[in-house]
Amino acid sequence: MKLKVKEINFETGNIKDVVLNIKDAQELGQKAGERIVVKNPQSKSLEDKYWVAILQIDYSNSLVRPGEIGIFLDILKEKNNLIDNMIVSVKPADPPDSFKYIQRKIRGAKLTTEEINSIISDTVSGSLSRIDLAAFITAVSINGMDNEEMTALTYAEARSGELFDFGPEVYDKHSTGGVPGNKVTLIIVPIVAAAGLTIPKSSTRAITSPSGTADSMEVLAPIAFDAEKLKSIVSKEKACIIWGGALNTSPADNILIEIERPLHMDPVGLMIPSILTKKISLGVKKLVLDIPVGEGTKFPTPDNGKQFAYLFKEIAKNVGIETECALTLAHQPIGHAIGPGLEAKEALTLLMDYSAGPNSLIEKSTDLAGILLEMGGKAQKGKGQSLAKEILRSGKAYEKMKRIIEVQGGNPELKPKDIKIGPHSKDFFAIKAGHITGVNNAIINSIAKSTGCPHSKNSGVEIFKKQGARIKEGDLIFRIHSDSQNKLKKAEKIYNSTGGPIILGGMMIERI
Amino acid sequence: MKLKVKEINFETGNIKDVVLNIKDAQELGQKAGERIVVKNPQSKSLEDKYWVAILQIDYSNSLVRPGEIGIFLDILKEKNNLIDNMIVSVKPADPPDSFKYIQRKIRGAKLTTEEINSIISDTVSGSLSRIDLAAFITAVSINGMDNEEMTALTYAEARSGELFDFGPEVYDKHSTGGVPGNKVTLIIVPIVAAAGLTIPKSSTRAITSPSGTADSMEVLAPIAFDAEKLKSIVSKEKACIIWGGALNTSPADNILIEIERPLHMDPVGLMIPSILTKKISLGVKKLVLDIPVGEGTKFPTPDNGKQFAYLFKEIAKNVGIETECALTLAHQPIGHAIGPGLEAKEALTLLMDYSAGPNSLIEKSTDLAGILLEMGGKAQKGKGQSLAKEILRSGKAYEKMKRIIEVQGGNPELKPKDIKIGPHSKDFFAIKAGHITGVNNAIINSIAKSTGCPHSKNSGVEIFKKQGARIKEGDLIFRIHSDSQNKLKKAEKIYNSTGGPIILGGMMIERI
Repeated sequence: MKLKVKEINFETGNIKDVVLNIKDAQELGQKAGERIVVKNPQSKSLEDKYWVAILQIDYSNSLVRPGEIGIFLDILKEKNNLIDNMIVSVKPADPPDSFKYIQRKIRGAKLTTEEINSIISDTVSGSLSRIDLAAFITAVSINGMDNEEMTALTYAEARSGELFDFGPEVYDKHSTGGVPGNKVTLIIVPIVAAAGLTIPKSSTRAITSPSGTADSMEVLAPIAFDAEKLKSIVSKEKACIIWGGALNTSPADNILIEIERPLHMDPVGLMIPSILTKKISLGVKKLVLDIPVGEGTKFPTPDNGKQFAYLFKEIAKNVGIETECALTLAHQPIGHAIGPGLEAKEALTLLMDYSAGPNSLIEKSTDLAGILLEMGGKAQKGKGQSLAKEILRSGKAYEKMKRIIEVQGGNPELKPKDIKIGPHSKDFFAIKAGHITGVNNAIINSIAKSTGCPHSKNSGVEIFKKQGARIKEGDLIFRIHSDSQNKLKKAEKIYNSTGGPIILGGMMIERI
Repeated sequence: MKLKVKEINFETGNIKDVVLNIKDAQELGQKAGERIVVKNPQSKSLEDKYWVAILQIDYSNSLVRPGEIGIFLDILKEKNNLIDNMIVSVKPADPPDSFKYIQRKIRGAKLTTEEINSIISDTVSGSLSRIDLAAFITAVSINGMDNEEMTALTYAEARSGELFDFGPEVYDKHSTGGVPGNKVTLIIVPIVAAAGLTIPKSSTRAITSPSGTADSMEVLAPIAFDAEKLKSIVSKEKACIIWGGALNTSPADNILIEIERPLHMDPVGLMIPSILTKKISLGVKKLVLDIPVGEGTKFPTPDNGKQFAYLFKEIAKNVGIETECALTLAHQPIGHAIGPGLEAKEALTLLMDYSAGPNSLIEKSTDLAGILLEMGGKAQKGKGQSLAKEILRSGKAYEKMKRIIEVQGGNPELKPKDIKIGPHSKDFFAIKAGHITGVNNAIINSIAKSTGCPHSKNSGVEIFKKQGARIKEGDLIFRIHSDSQNKLKKAEKIYNSTGGPIILGGMMIERI
């Protein structure tokens, strides 16, 4: 069937949808969500000449008329010699082989390396639709993936994108997440780099939390770089703290995550490859993995975390990454600050002045940095943390951080006081004396996100008293900041309706 | 966040997508595929005032600019007082409760009736996205549904749409499909109706086969009616053979099918409710279920079919439908004709002249019609088929069919010779004498579909010799018809490359 290209002035994202009028779709015998092969006779390269598209149908005659094929900007930009009003031909396409492999996983089968490679390459090419991938993710959630499958998936995802080589000894740190205020990366990277190890840290922005490492680092310096610029940064400082999203590492993993997220699914069979594939992409050889355990994290009990740690180490070993895992406490925030600006400020304050604390941030950062220092032979077994503390206390970590900020294009002389927070804020005080028995992370996240985080850099919350603290009536315990009066009101409303995140003697503290 | 409505002159189908510019989506903290509540302050009814939409993102600034919300025609048509350029407000929405119930099914839980009701009502309202439903369908495929769940799902789906009441005794026939040329409904309905039973038969168009009952019936009479017209037809003739797609029965089931189809999934946990819910919608009380078993059907072995039959009868009983199941042979086509026009012609020929056969069509039709006659007390146990044959032979079934055709707006005097086939056709002859040991249904379907069926009514294939037949060299064994010379060539190519569907003494017959 020959059709005239009609440009649809709109990008849909990753997916290679085309739109046919219902009349032509019926004539072709294809339904919405099924596949057609499009042939562009004008194209020279095979890839541009034939491609499989997923069919969407215009039932209304309003956009695409009989005889036309609606093509979104995504495809028009990607395909050479494909232009408005030209004639292409289409015919029904069978689902790709990878579709059958997804069905094998649904039936509980173990997939071969070739089958996994095929699923990943069709994920990137757009030959698998979003609902195919939703079915795959659901099947992996239910039926799991074994070690060989996860190993194959890790490699396949890494090969789907750019691979960097920063030398034979590249270090990294990663966290499975779930703790508010976990700005430890901003401390660990400069410590480890100051000791002479290579640590090209690529981070994510917040997905469901009030701030990701990338969001906080962005307060101090630009974080989005292409491959060439990244190479230049790391060649100069052997370290960076950048956002991974601007690099073309493991696009397959990014596509899967885009579907896992709205499904609220993060099965271990995809999570481990997702972490490791980004490490392979950056040439990482030695890794410390922070596994927060407890309510609100991916691992409700230490046993869950331990089981995951052993599994992770095994898959990591398969793909050539030596890993040490640290199970960490997740019952309350690290430090006091939650939100991009507040976290950058707290980290910068500690880098400049060890005595400023906070203690939980020092302990967790140097624990993890210490492990890397030991793995890198910079400290003897058991001596890593004290070396890390020494590097932090001495100001060498701060000096390194200034150079990282500078090489990434930020202002190395930026001081904590230059990071503006608010301007709207609201304080909360203890209504009675007592002993804090717990902190509710979910309420903290909910309040912090309602202030506008992570999109608003200068919004967020501060928690001044944490578990174990004794407090007097009238003590300042919590503060909410926002760039919007309206959002501040909303955040206050959450505080008041939940009773706030701080639990006193088993009772909720109320606002006065 | 306040946004200006921008009409997108395009219908997307069932799903309530809206489009935001990436800037606004970030500001809102929502990602593609997540949900937002849209509030239209101009609307009076609660349903039009607040609704949950699934977010799509324009990354290109080309369609939806910051400050705008792109709304597709589907929603603009449905919502009162929603017009281009008006201001609406949006905020993030949590996933609906039904989303959590889908996740419970993913974790292997049994769903309660309330949970199933919630999933179904959110399916119809569009609050569950296509990928949510793909996850649900996959989870049901893997984890199954028990009898109580299937019963609840059947009722929930039926309640999602229109319910008809054609009296206390309504009969029906259904087939689980998989046999080419299965035009038995065109014979069964007039037989059963001629005996005085009420049988308002609603059929589907072909999904993956060359012709569905609705496609074949459409050659004889119109098949698309709204509720009022259907009531009037059934009140006159107590029977009809219509297409269910024009009625608003069980829209939830239709939406699920639209996602099951491209996923090539049809799990029993959804299939049984899907069949039964349409029967409840039409007030059916007694049903005969044709279960073809064998290669190419849903039930490869008679044991598979039997197991399904017992399960089906139980769920049917739970929802008040007395059912008898007939396991039937599926090793070759019923009759000789495959394709809408050819099948209508073969059925009409038999209705007018019993002696014309073909035998397989007579036997299967009267077997199934006989069961209904027995269930309806028109014949004693064991005597139904002979009564059915008598009604068919006497011409009473033909007289009834003429009245059905007339009341549906067709020409009751239409004769088989008036049904034009082709005009392009190609005959195939036996290249040697022998005994036919088998017929390959998959090859028949593939050839028939390549002729243009079911979209082209006058295309299709005829098989003249079937299993068990002795043939001489030069016998006419197969004929391909198409309305397009081009498609005929393609169909011939499939015949030649596969060796055709007729297996002679264990060897494929070749074309001469």
